[in-house]
Amino acid sequence: MEIIIAEESGLCYGVKRALTMARRTRRVKSGEVVTLGDLIHNPRVVADLAAEGIGSAEAPEEVRKGTVIIRSHGVSPEVYRRLKRRKIDVVDATCPIVRKIQRLVEALARKGREVVIVGDREHPETRGLLGHSRGRGVVVENEAQARDLPSRKARAVLAQSTHDLESFQKVAAALVEKTRELTVYNTVCDSTRTRQRSTSELAGRVDTLFIVGGRRSSNTARLYEISKRVRPRTYFIENARQITPAMLRGAETIGISGGASTPPEAIQEAVDAIERSFKQNPARE
Amino acid sequence: MEIIIAEESGLCYGVKRALTMARRTRRVKSGEVVTLGDLIHNPRVVADLAAEGIGSAEAPEEVRKGTVIIRSHGVSPEVYRRLKRRKIDVVDATCPIVRKIQRLVEALARKGREVVIVGDREHPETRGLLGHSRGRGVVVENEAQARDLPSRKARAVLAQSTHDLESFQKVAAALVEKTRELTVYNTVCDSTRTRQRSTSELAGRVDTLFIVGGRRSSNTARLYEISKRVRPRTYFIENARQITPAMLRGAETIGISGGASTPPEAIQEAVDAIERSFKQNPARE
Repeated sequence: MEIIIAEESGLCYGVKRALTMARRTRRVKSGEVVTLGDLIHNPRVVADLAAEGIGSAEAPEEVRKGTVIIRSHGVSPEVYRRLKRRKIDVVDATCPIVRKIQRLVEALARKGREVVIVGDREHPETRGLLGHSRGRGVVVENEAQARDLPSRKARAVLAQSTHDLESFQKVAAALVEKTRELTVYNTVCDSTRTRQRSTSELAGRVDTLFIVGGRRSSNTARLYEISKRVRPRTYFIENARQITPAMLRGAETIGISGGASTPPEAIQEAVDAIERSFKQNPARE
Repeated sequence: MEIIIAEESGLCYGVKRALTMARRTRRVKSGEVVTLGDLIHNPRVVADLAAEGIGSAEAPEEVRKGTVIIRSHGVSPEVYRRLKRRKIDVVDATCPIVRKIQRLVEALARKGREVVIVGDREHPETRGLLGHSRGRGVVVENEAQARDLPSRKARAVLAQSTHDLESFQKVAAALVEKTRELTVYNTVCDSTRTRQRSTSELAGRVDTLFIVGGRRSSNTARLYEISKRVRPRTYFIENARQITPAMLRGAETIGISGGASTPPEAIQEAVDAIERSFKQNPARE
């Protein structure tokens, strides 16, 4: 039995940076320290943070005083304004890559250009990007929605940083038919691309693959879709306890991958659980 | 038995205009009048023109004096220079839509932008567009060739006016992966799109479809490919004499379409030939 962990699986640079910033803030600031929304889509890490004294609030209005940490997904300008109005200290942990996309959206909107944002409508990063578009933004989740857009002489299209590249390419292709001059900004971040590519490759050479991550993490869900296409025996698990002997039956080679918000501990626990299961039941059918 | 002719089949605006310009030139000019390359990819029309005193030359150097007609496909700036050097009168029948694409290529090249031209490498329009790119142009014929291009921070992509839209969309999608900022100019002309769409639709509702046009016409060849995908009983014929009873066997509904260089007479002759064949052999299996 062999366990192979996908390259670039688990926490990305932006999420690691936000975690470090949150913990440093907790050390140096007195008073309440809260993140605006869960810092990462991982219940276990969120619980750890709470235990360390870093809470979570849904909206600026829930915070009375203290320090608010903007998570890596970023927020719309409106949220910054509301925080300022309430005189709340802000530590901005927006991922620098996302910040760059926000600035791009702003620049395009300033030029009066329609900006198609490809991403999950409810994803905080997408909502943040839309907020930076001064009403010029349109969110599109997939190719079918792109085909429903009206024809335009010119428009721009870009992606939520953790969107699936293939889906983004399909949306761009559909927009070519609807747009005389279409500027396509490939803003899918390198870490997302590497993770997707390595997960897809890994799916091709294992018998079973586990995607470890929070159910609410959209980039983890995409890894699951990508892997499932290549390897039907792909399981999306939130933690190692969900691994059952049935999932491992007959598997000689087992792959593990995790999303941008999956901590290394969660991956390690999956490895441990698989090894334990094999030791307890070495003669599998 | 029913015969249906595809909407927008046969001569497009640019080719009709070039024919009119050539004949008017013949009327008003004394001395030799030649087109640079065949005016249209249709042997029959080329023979008609020759009989009317409008010849054809392959290169400016073949013409000693008189008037040269630039055909609808357009030519590179180098050809204009060679004609000027030889003090030959020029009547420029470049299709206005192609002229616009040439200007776009020039403008992009002037800005130092790499320009990917999607089209058949040997097509005169593509060669002309490439000539306008000041060495910044790269011709790509299909998705596979696009995938072989190096990565770039920025580049532009546009199509030969009669290129297949679906193929152009695939190339654009492939380039998204290779380019941070990709500007896609959808320069496939409306006439080409309408012709392809109506031929594809017609293929879906007939038993047999005839594509009438010159073997060297690239847009006619694309119509054949498009129709063949939908209706395997598609025949590419250069003239009505090629229609055999076997092609019509069992067909109740017969479609006809033609490329941008197919004259209405060629379509009419196909209709006549099919009707004759049915009259001679009314009880087909």
